[in-house]
Amino acid sequence: MANTLFGPLSGSCRVDGLLDDGAWIAALLEVELALSAVAAEQGAVSEDDADGVERAVAAVAGVDPAELAAESVEGGNPVIPLVKRLRAAAARIQPGAERAVHPGATSQDVMDTALVLLTRRAGHRVVEDLGACADAAAVLARAHRDTPCAARTLGQQALPTTFGLVAANWCAGLDRARVRLRQVLDELPVQYGGAAGTLAASHPYGPAVADALAVRLGLAPQGVPWHTERSRIGELAGALGVAAGACGKPATDVVLLSATEVGEVSEAAPGDSSSMPHKRNPAAAVTARGSAQRAPGLVAGLLAGAEQEFQRAAGAWHAEWETLTGLLRVTAGAASRLRSCLEGLQVHETAMARNLALAAGVQGSGSGHAGELVDRVLAGRPR
Amino acid sequence: MANTLFGPLSGSCRVDGLLDDGAWIAALLEVELALSAVAAEQGAVSEDDADGVERAVAAVAGVDPAELAAESVEGGNPVIPLVKRLRAAAARIQPGAERAVHPGATSQDVMDTALVLLTRRAGHRVVEDLGACADAAAVLARAHRDTPCAARTLGQQALPTTFGLVAANWCAGLDRARVRLRQVLDELPVQYGGAAGTLAASHPYGPAVADALAVRLGLAPQGVPWHTERSRIGELAGALGVAAGACGKPATDVVLLSATEVGEVSEAAPGDSSSMPHKRNPAAAVTARGSAQRAPGLVAGLLAGAEQEFQRAAGAWHAEWETLTGLLRVTAGAASRLRSCLEGLQVHETAMARNLALAAGVQGSGSGHAGELVDRVLAGRPR
Amino acid sequence: MANTLFGPLSGSCRVDGLLDDGAWIAALLEVELALSAVAAEQGAVSEDDADGVERAVAAVAGVDPAELAAESVEGGNPVIPLVKRLRAAAARIQPGAERAVHPGATSQDVMDTALVLLTRRAGHRVVEDLGACADAAAVLARAHRDTPCAARTLGQQALPTTFGLVAANWCAGLDRARVRLRQVLDELPVQYGGAAGTLAASHPYGPAVADALAVRLGLAPQGVPWHTERSRIGELAGALGVAAGACGKPATDVVLLSATEVGEVSEAAPGDSSSMPHKRNPAAAVTARGSAQRAPGLVAGLLAGAEQEFQRAAGAWHAEWETLTGLLRVTAGAASRLRSCLEGLQVHETAMARNLALAAGVQGSGSGHAGELVDRVLAGRPR
Amino acid sequence: MANTLFGPLSGSCRVDGLLDDGAWIAALLEVELALSAVAAEQGAVSEDDADGVERAVAAVAGVDPAELAAESVEGGNPVIPLVKRLRAAAARIQPGAERAVHPGATSQDVMDTALVLLTRRAGHRVVEDLGACADAAAVLARAHRDTPCAARTLGQQALPTTFGLVAANWCAGLDRARVRLRQVLDELPVQYGGAAGTLAASHPYGPAVADALAVRLGLAPQGVPWHTERSRIGELAGALGVAAGACGKPATDVVLLSATEVGEVSEAAPGDSSSMPHKRNPAAAVTARGSAQRAPGLVAGLLAGAEQEFQRAAGAWHAEWETLTGLLRVTAGAASRLRSCLEGLQVHETAMARNLALAAGVQGSGSGHAGELVDRVLAGRPR
Repeated sequence: MANTLFGPLSGSCRVDGLLDDGAWIAALLEVELALSAVAAEQGAVSEDDADGVERAVAAVAGVDPAELAAESVEGGNPVIPLVKRLRAAAARIQPGAERAVHPGATSQDVMDTALVLLTRRAGHRVVEDLGACADAAAVLARAHRDTPCAARTLGQQALPTTFGLVAANWCAGLDRARVRLRQVLDELPVQYGGAAGTLAASHPYGPAVADALAVRLGLAPQGVPWHTERSRIGELAGALGVAAGACGKPATDVVLLSATEVGEVSEAAPGDSSSMPHKRNPAAAVTARGSAQRAPGLVAGLLAGAEQEFQRAAGAWHAEWETLTGLLRVTAGAASRLRSCLEGLQVHETAMARNLALAAGVQGSGSGHAGELVDRVLAGRPR
Repeated sequence: MANTLFGPLSGSCRVDGLLDDGAWIAALLEVELALSAVAAEQGAVSEDDADGVERAVAAVAGVDPAELAAESVEGGNPVIPLVKRLRAAAARIQPGAERAVHPGATSQDVMDTALVLLTRRAGHRVVEDLGACADAAAVLARAHRDTPCAARTLGQQALPTTFGLVAANWCAGLDRARVRLRQVLDELPVQYGGAAGTLAASHPYGPAVADALAVRLGLAPQGVPWHTERSRIGELAGALGVAAGACGKPATDVVLLSATEVGEVSEAAPGDSSSMPHKRNPAAAVTARGSAQRAPGLVAGLLAGAEQEFQRAAGAWHAEWETLTGLLRVTAGAASRLRSCLEGLQVHETAMARNLALAAGVQGSGSGHAGELVDRVLAGRPR
Repeated sequence: MANTLFGPLSGSCRVDGLLDDGAWIAALLEVELALSAVAAEQGAVSEDDADGVERAVAAVAGVDPAELAAESVEGGNPVIPLVKRLRAAAARIQPGAERAVHPGATSQDVMDTALVLLTRRAGHRVVEDLGACADAAAVLARAHRDTPCAARTLGQQALPTTFGLVAANWCAGLDRARVRLRQVLDELPVQYGGAAGTLAASHPYGPAVADALAVRLGLAPQGVPWHTERSRIGELAGALGVAAGACGKPATDVVLLSATEVGEVSEAAPGDSSSMPHKRNPAAAVTARGSAQRAPGLVAGLLAGAEQEFQRAAGAWHAEWETLTGLLRVTAGAASRLRSCLEGLQVHETAMARNLALAAGVQGSGSGHAGELVDRVLAGRPR
Repeated sequence: MANTLFGPLSGSCRVDGLLDDGAWIAALLEVELALSAVAAEQGAVSEDDADGVERAVAAVAGVDPAELAAESVEGGNPVIPLVKRLRAAAARIQPGAERAVHPGATSQDVMDTALVLLTRRAGHRVVEDLGACADAAAVLARAHRDTPCAARTLGQQALPTTFGLVAANWCAGLDRARVRLRQVLDELPVQYGGAAGTLAASHPYGPAVADALAVRLGLAPQGVPWHTERSRIGELAGALGVAAGACGKPATDVVLLSATEVGEVSEAAPGDSSSMPHKRNPAAAVTARGSAQRAPGLVAGLLAGAEQEFQRAAGAWHAEWETLTGLLRVTAGAASRLRSCLEGLQVHETAMARNLALAAGVQGSGSGHAGELVDRVLAGRPR
């Protein structure tokens, strides 16, 4: 697929390596390894067998993704053939160790937990970039706390504001999105329920194994298995959608404020155009918008999938994998490209003053409490 | 529009009266009244003039929605003509009182604050119904903690679970959605920024008026105006989308478990069919799904609107009003109809036992930790 | 609901009266009346009984929508109680005539056919407004065939074009959307299949009744019943979504070209602002965008509903009714408001010339084949 | 990214190779090569220089996608650096030939035309699979024209139908989606407008070059450039969304008819479950649904992008590339997996008869005109 080609310009390359085939296979094996280990700790399998699984995991780690992919068709997910390979490797390496492979688990346990691992890792990079974006906006807000510029409503100059307040609003939205996303990521739990979600196959160790698995992987405990109770996926989708929107807003403002006729800001490294050397395209803002605009449809797709029937959905679960990683990619892209846009954004105060002189009635007015509002945002920033 | 006709069957009638023309106009006037009052408290306008505004509000309350609607076309929102009417009424009733109408405000301040009022009222009714749904699921979970039934994965019988655990999962999802929605509703703030979002027109009273207005209306303080920083709208959309999904899941299970060939549950008052007296349609679950399935597209619409340019968006803001009330309606419908479905749901244990006997390998197995997992959900229910 | 209040400003009032409770009930009765009549023509019921149905329809026409709505909850749609009322009225007015009520039909036959009638009527009004928009764009294109203005790419001035070519592109998109929508509307068929979609209850008259019903109602023949084969609904959704987008594009351009700093166009009747008399808001374009932006999420909702299981879907069908009428409303709103925007749009050639002088390298260039391209669009306009 | 891993199970591998980095770069170069050639034919550049471009294209064809991707960040699309490389290669290979590189074009011309090429190639593979699905459904319809089975409405047995009619309805939806998609694909035009969409840089050869380019690439003529007139993209999105839905419908029916308690059909090669040997999962239908359910959100994303401002959109254009290829992938996946499901689907007539005996009132009835309706579908199939 076209990921390499569009990854840098869309910004998704920030997380592509955390979500690709290799990352998936590594995460699936990481879960299997952890599961065998905690099952041994809890007495559900023997320590010896678990040691054998560790070596089997190492042996299987180099599996060709294309081969695993081909083997995944029959069962509809890659865990089934991966477990077969693990069992075969374990039996070969240390006969009997295959008993400690995938103990008490169903393939959804491993897929969901691996997806949570991938999501956390990519998601925290988004959190980091959102933070950098908010920091950059805060720098602009502080520097231009009292720089007059036109507030525009419905595209028309209204009354003066300050550029600091404009940037403070960007900061506020980015911070809010960042804090919520971090919270949702941190609440993502392990999944461990077995085929029917009853932990029957790991009885009587089930709940203890589930809790220990969460601790070992650094995930939240599950309470109960959530195979078809997908409200957390919906919350995650919402938080990512809000984050993409919080990036789209300043990117849109930068595009509009960079317009030839407005000229109030410009990117530090605007893109050129091969045929038009006079052009100074706000390429980072443009591509941040391009990524941000892809998020809402993906959020809708994940929310529509909440209707997961029975104890494992026949399709809605399968639809989540690439939709969620896709949503992570576009949100990461938006945050990453916006970061490039805002860090070092050039502010043209003379253009702001010139534009303020265009509309009768605008120039004379003051900017009210704009400075205090900037201070309020900067003083109240969440960690 | 068709609201009367489809309101009861879709369940949206639970909130239709909280979101209709009358509710909108009342909320807009409630905001204007409160604004004049707190402006007087803070010394921004005179108490006498504010008293006049109170009488003007009463005089305008009976305005014909159709007339106001016609007057709203020119400016693009109903606050502009409403304020004109208020000013005229105030000047007529108590000359000079028009000075205290709409003090320091822009029409978006009043629209947004009114929308927050409507949203909170309708939203808390959804919270109430989600709670009733969760309670009903909890009753089922407790009663059938140990009732064996088939867990089904990808539509096929897998291993046994208990119906209690099935219902406990419904409960968990509904509770999670309920708590998050309540939190988001409670965080919805007042909006007060004036034309440019700088509080210039209410200087030096602006921040004090904004905070007092929030207190008086029982809303969260705004921090700073959020005219085009719509992350809260996105969070709300996400929470409502998750709530709709949390209703769609049990509704889907009820539809499938009610199938002629499965027959494990039936609604207390199933719908009949005029031409087929043998049919027992799970009409409440069916219409709960019908409402729930409408939510994701509306969430996408709201998230796409996050890209609000400058200090007032030329379209994305206007798109919010009916999309958000529409989303409230479908979520309320889903919760309300699911409540009818779950309260009194009949569980057919003999059918569950009969079905368990169908698949070799399923019947003999135990249901593992199902009972403990039920207890865990019931003991851990959030307030 | 808030339809009255927002109908004129959003433009949905163009079709609200064609889609409201009254229109629904009238269309349902129109279908029942037509069905009894053609069943009599084909010999499936007696002419005498069909005459009685005609009188029963007249008697039921004044039914209180709220009462019918309340009676619709049990069965999940309004046809079931409407047919009960019709049968009772027929039996009362002309004993025995109740035999000719709803002959061989299921409630979905009547709901779907009525929805097709409503859709055609509202849809053709959208087609009309799209045509008027395209005509207005064509007038602008012809008048400004050679008026130089800046082409802008990524928000930056690129090279000159002519305003005529800008408007010709609007025209081309509007025409394309119009022609496709009209085609889809004209292909919408009658629905007549009976409870199982086999026409069993009207055997051996079924196919003949279905075809005659289509002729009488002016609809396309169905071929076979399409109770859960919803590709036509998806096609309709797509065509409406494209139409909304074709309106959103010129509305966006008008908003941006009306910006204070650009000032190249202005609406004939721009909206004022109570607090800022210097503002000239492009209110029609703004609200056209507001309506257009609501369409994509609704299209997604309808497409997601294509997965209609078995012979009548338990939810996805119910979700269509208000989603489709909602989509018709926002598309009609976009087209109607854009029509107000484009008819009489004022074009400021001096501003265009002034702006062209801003960017070095832009002004000197010619506008290439712009004039010929305008001619090509105008000469090739579809009927 | 995870394409390799999920490609076979989701079915997207049917088109992944037509849409990946290599396919993109090849298509971009194919357009550049064709453009130089037709420009020479029309006299806009010299034949000699065009010959040099041909050799430059060959030299650049092996460019490392990752390098090109990195170079694409500054300008926001890969054509800008590709043209730089082409010019350098041309100048090196045959000094002066660089004059014939990218004649009169803007990067969007090449991106859009290449995207159309990719879309046509992947799209026609979808058309092919939709045809095979419809053929398989037709075979089932013919074979089971008179096989009684229960029609189910709202999940309940209603009255008898025949399995042939069920399959004929699948066939009708698949055929309709196929014909429309093919039509939309065949109407996709070339893009050639130059920087401002006026064909200024190729004057006076512009329209002739555009038309010749279309002929050479086998695409429809453009009429006029459509840089920001994206109704065709919307139409394409709609057609793909309908196609995905037409696949989701039969896949859903197969999942439900395969349920343990129903057992009326089973896939020829059902998936196994490592832990539950008794299970026979309809894995192809499940994954077809998984792919189909991803389409509506992507359609919404493309439709929301119709609002492309000015003469090149700052974000909405960039969002199209991966959204459209993503939509092609999921639709191809749905069609491909459904084809595996339907070709060789096993139909269990005894189970159908057994189930019909469950509901009083169902069994005795006849299946009306079911057979004739099957014949009507089969006789009326479009090419």
